[in-house]
Amino acid sequence: MRWTHTLDPLFTPASIAVVGASNKEGKVGYLVVRNLIASGFSGPIYPVNRKDPEVQGLKAYPSVADIPGTIDMAVSCVPARFVPSVIEEAGEKGARSGVIITAGFSEVGKDGKDLEREVEDIADRYGMRLLGPNCLGLVNTQHHMNATFASRTPREGGLAIISQSGAVCVSVLDWAEQNRVGFSKFISVGNKLDIEEADLIDYLKDDDPTRMVMMYIEHIRSGREFIEAARGATRTKPVLALKAGRTKAGAKAASSHTGAIAGADSVYEAAFRKAGIMRVRRLTEFFDFAKAFTQLPLPRGGSVAIVSNAGGFAVVSSDAVADEPELRMASFTRDTLDLLSERLPAEANIYNPVDVLGDARLERYQLSIEAMLADDNVDSVVVIMAPVGATMVASIAQWIADLGETLEKPVVTCLMGGADMEAGIRILRESRVPNFDSPERAIQTLGGLARFVKQAASPEPGPPVLMMGDRDAVQNAIDDVLSQGRLSMSEDEGYELLRAYDVPVPPTAVAKDADEAVAIAREMGYPVVLKVASSEIAHKSDMGGIAVGMDSDGSVRDNFHYIMRTVRQRMPRARIDGVTIHKMVKGREIIVGINRNDTFGPVVTFGLGGIFVEILKDVSTRIAPLTRQDIRSMITEIKSFPILAGARGQRPADLDALEDLIARVTQIAIDFPQVQELEVNPLLLGEEGEGAWAVDALITLRGSDE
Amino acid sequence: MRWTHTLDPLFTPASIAVVGASNKEGKVGYLVVRNLIASGFSGPIYPVNRKDPEVQGLKAYPSVADIPGTIDMAVSCVPARFVPSVIEEAGEKGARSGVIITAGFSEVGKDGKDLEREVEDIADRYGMRLLGPNCLGLVNTQHHMNATFASRTPREGGLAIISQSGAVCVSVLDWAEQNRVGFSKFISVGNKLDIEEADLIDYLKDDDPTRMVMMYIEHIRSGREFIEAARGATRTKPVLALKAGRTKAGAKAASSHTGAIAGADSVYEAAFRKAGIMRVRRLTEFFDFAKAFTQLPLPRGGSVAIVSNAGGFAVVSSDAVADEPELRMASFTRDTLDLLSERLPAEANIYNPVDVLGDARLERYQLSIEAMLADDNVDSVVVIMAPVGATMVASIAQWIADLGETLEKPVVTCLMGGADMEAGIRILRESRVPNFDSPERAIQTLGGLARFVKQAASPEPGPPVLMMGDRDAVQNAIDDVLSQGRLSMSEDEGYELLRAYDVPVPPTAVAKDADEAVAIAREMGYPVVLKVASSEIAHKSDMGGIAVGMDSDGSVRDNFHYIMRTVRQRMPRARIDGVTIHKMVKGREIIVGINRNDTFGPVVTFGLGGIFVEILKDVSTRIAPLTRQDIRSMITEIKSFPILAGARGQRPADLDALEDLIARVTQIAIDFPQVQELEVNPLLLGEEGEGAWAVDALITLRGSDE
Repeated sequence: MRWTHTLDPLFTPASIAVVGASNKEGKVGYLVVRNLIASGFSGPIYPVNRKDPEVQGLKAYPSVADIPGTIDMAVSCVPARFVPSVIEEAGEKGARSGVIITAGFSEVGKDGKDLEREVEDIADRYGMRLLGPNCLGLVNTQHHMNATFASRTPREGGLAIISQSGAVCVSVLDWAEQNRVGFSKFISVGNKLDIEEADLIDYLKDDDPTRMVMMYIEHIRSGREFIEAARGATRTKPVLALKAGRTKAGAKAASSHTGAIAGADSVYEAAFRKAGIMRVRRLTEFFDFAKAFTQLPLPRGGSVAIVSNAGGFAVVSSDAVADEPELRMASFTRDTLDLLSERLPAEANIYNPVDVLGDARLERYQLSIEAMLADDNVDSVVVIMAPVGATMVASIAQWIADLGETLEKPVVTCLMGGADMEAGIRILRESRVPNFDSPERAIQTLGGLARFVKQAASPEPGPPVLMMGDRDAVQNAIDDVLSQGRLSMSEDEGYELLRAYDVPVPPTAVAKDADEAVAIAREMGYPVVLKVASSEIAHKSDMGGIAVGMDSDGSVRDNFHYIMRTVRQRMPRARIDGVTIHKMVKGREIIVGINRNDTFGPVVTFGLGGIFVEILKDVSTRIAPLTRQDIRSMITEIKSFPILAGARGQRPADLDALEDLIARVTQIAIDFPQVQELEVNPLLLGEEGEGAWAVDALITLRGSDE
Repeated sequence: MRWTHTLDPLFTPASIAVVGASNKEGKVGYLVVRNLIASGFSGPIYPVNRKDPEVQGLKAYPSVADIPGTIDMAVSCVPARFVPSVIEEAGEKGARSGVIITAGFSEVGKDGKDLEREVEDIADRYGMRLLGPNCLGLVNTQHHMNATFASRTPREGGLAIISQSGAVCVSVLDWAEQNRVGFSKFISVGNKLDIEEADLIDYLKDDDPTRMVMMYIEHIRSGREFIEAARGATRTKPVLALKAGRTKAGAKAASSHTGAIAGADSVYEAAFRKAGIMRVRRLTEFFDFAKAFTQLPLPRGGSVAIVSNAGGFAVVSSDAVADEPELRMASFTRDTLDLLSERLPAEANIYNPVDVLGDARLERYQLSIEAMLADDNVDSVVVIMAPVGATMVASIAQWIADLGETLEKPVVTCLMGGADMEAGIRILRESRVPNFDSPERAIQTLGGLARFVKQAASPEPGPPVLMMGDRDAVQNAIDDVLSQGRLSMSEDEGYELLRAYDVPVPPTAVAKDADEAVAIAREMGYPVVLKVASSEIAHKSDMGGIAVGMDSDGSVRDNFHYIMRTVRQRMPRARIDGVTIHKMVKGREIIVGINRNDTFGPVVTFGLGGIFVEILKDVSTRIAPLTRQDIRSMITEIKSFPILAGARGQRPADLDALEDLIARVTQIAIDFPQVQELEVNPLLLGEEGEGAWAVDALITLRGSDE
């Protein structure tokens, strides 16, 4: 077996056919051949061109079939309609991977979509993995392979980039060259006909040269695989994602350009969190983090030292440190303070942020930075400079740039100004030390490093909570409802389903007449709630079908009659099975909702009922399955959690019972893919020891073949 | 009268003495003389130097007294201890303004502070206005006067900058030169011994060449004057402020470098809001807005058109537009769509964001941008470019730069990349069109322009609400309490004070014995609350001194005895006046608090009581006096406002009564400077028509001489 990973044929092919190879400068087929040659690809390159016998000095072939022997990979630069035959011929020749640079597939509409399916079928037959279509191609610098039509070959380094936008790739390449950022892999995924982020992350997690993975994402197709793959990678390597199309306007723009429908942003947020992916929200961060993570050592913690020749910038920097959750201002050791107080002028501030004063030259920066790097209380260093003359700035920048080669703690700089700073900025660009145009950006970047360090050091999440239930009973209930052509379950059916998974529901029974109602109520114990029993009435309260707080035989009897009469009058055609009697339970109103997302599966939402969810939107969201830790954190992270914890002299709520209930309803959604939506609203949560009750459940199914 | 504004002698002196003028390159006294000469100052410059008879070719004088005739302004570059005599001599010579560049005053401690007071007294005697000490000096480009020791003279333009940090000034100058941003005035305020932001804004509001004012602020001294001056300016000119020391860490850093104590950030937030000042939170925005506001025309509204050669960046840009409250994506007119569909390739996206595709050259950008500028539905344009080769980028940039000279709508660009973009970025820097390193920054800047346009177009705020009250009664009550050596008012004293300003309080009376208590309760009507009447007992509830919900003669009688007995047992030495009977009122709990801020005066805070204030921190804050509009907006802007508006089927609260009550308690704080704190907690707010009641008031005074 030559390959150990399914993507090895893509990343390390021994031979490559370029279909549509060209001698015409500027054409895609020209650029791909040129880049393969220029990047030093060591295996045979077979240009395929119908007319030219030679392409860029290499012997060319009229078709893939004419290539002697076998090939490992085919790169397609021919128009879309020719792609199926190219893939077919490549398969015949033994190719196990294909890069379809060609555009004109699903992004242009239905015909393109059909063409994609056709290509997919052919590739499946030959066991080929396909990248694209509608992409820039890929680069593996370690394999000396640049199979893209980009204008340059990136230098070798630690960054792997996966992008759904070719143009973003091009900009990143151009920027990276200028900022001394090198790549391990560079993958433009295009329409993701076959290979998608999940496959690539799974490959990159064991790729030693890859120090970090950055993704530009507009839409994820296989959500669960994506999360699974990323979880495997994110404890050892930072994996960052910029998710574009966060907003409605953005999603609209994304769909017009890729044809993909973007999911709700909160779901992506939960998915990234589950996967351990660091989300970046702005393109500037995308670039800033790329440089920092690939060029700097990781900090041990979040303690920051600042040196500045400008008090004002030191103040702004201190604000920025306070804004970053993982950072704090370092307190220097006695040694550092002694040294700074001895060597800096009396007017300088030797406490963090250190102010070396406006007339500082290299020496003061040098001794301050060296002291900070030697100080065990300091995890990272920010160097800030207001103009002190272009020559001096350049000399300080050069010293820092040289220092950058042997750093054991991250150092970032911030040269604030214009012309006086240009030479210094240029020197730092070429160095390992990232320079920023504001202290805030510099410090946010350090915050990102600290966040990853904290995440990597956090204990492994435990296993997902597994709850047992009577699966047969639930399956039967679901099949029953579906067989009647319904998708919504009635309240009683909902209760039955919850009971099968030991979700506590208030005792309940259906009474056919008033005597039976009274007998049931007495046995349950007062107070009780009466509700009309009918799967055909949705808004029971509006129909006069509910009576709460019944605390005597008389009131049960009267209200039984009242409900039956009123509902019959208002909905004469509805089937009414009688009146359901519920034992009335007490507690705080909670909402737990589960919604099956097409991409990521069941998404669990939690919040306090009433105004907290409806008005304050104070909810937490996670993607199933949930660990104990997930459940606890989703309970504690809502802003109104102190209410449950027992704020203002109240007794704490029964959080154990709440956790258990969340775990059980989540298990139902996991076990039964037909459950589209399951909302417990309200869940009534008692005080410690009193338990939690699912008082009403809205359950919506989806057809089995959806 | 030569001067019409008190700061005219500072901005347009006819003659200047430079005390401490020097021939030694690099010294402050050298640089100031050099800058005055280089900037083309047209009046006489008198260098003062003890030894040299000539400084930089100008006749020098051994002392200010030796200068022939009179002078308008003196610039001090001599050590701090000589400054008092310099100011004295300058005053004698008729100077009406002084610029004290010299450091070593209040920023170094008490001695320096004393020296400042001494200098202030001398200046007062001569009616001189002083800038500094511990500053960089000032520039008035229109007066051809650079009285700073900065390394360059800024070009003429529309930006006035006021900065509390000299180093920030230097960085801004360096940046501005590179980015073609010119200045009208440039003022480094230093320690603000005399002249502060309020004076300067008041001057700049009528200074025609000044198109916008930007401030770097660490601390404001005269808060009310600051707000007043800014209100006068901000409807016609954008006034922006970066407030450093927002956070605890930042404030600490600021105090170590200027000796100023920063106020709570929410108070500054309220002050900027009242003043119409646009707050910038990051240094990058400070620079971005400076360029945009001085170089671009203002947009008519918030409708944005985007053109990009990269779909990915178009998506990110659409997200960024959605993130800006004042912006939205423009919908093109039919004409624009027709033109774009005719002239752009079929695969291009002609709807906003327009995608001109990766192979776009100048022509597609040109026709798209021209169509957008001609489209009445478009207020501003964002041009985004991924690399298309350095030469092509430069040619497109040049076309946009030329366009920039005649724009009637703002255009911003975003060249995303590295080396390929450098020439283009350089061209745009020199142009009026700001270029940004990310779409988010470009669009945030447009958001800033739109925010100003909206603010300038909003109706003038009405007059502050004025409430009448019995001032004598309140003054007597306050004097009484102070004369007893107390600073806290008792509950009854608080009620009395509130009643004097017609703030509704529940009917209340003190009963000496149980019979009287019953009689009072009957007259008020049940239910009532009983509270021990004593100004010496703070925590009445903890002492068993409160009984609520009394609804019968018997319960009043029993609880009267119980309270008297329990409190006497627990606090045998406290003076007890009996038991206060309160009519029990109902409603939602609200908190209205007023706290007198040393800088800005009474600060009013509003929120729903209980968890909303304590746990969710859902409050709004304004600085008194309040207009009707202020009161309304502070009520409606809290997140929990829907609860008052009548969410979830409840009746709306009595907002009119609430507004009135807020206005009345605010008036008390305005009328009586001795009121340090006045908190109505709870205020009970009934439903529409039911009124609002101040049920408890905590009033704290401060000594009259504070």
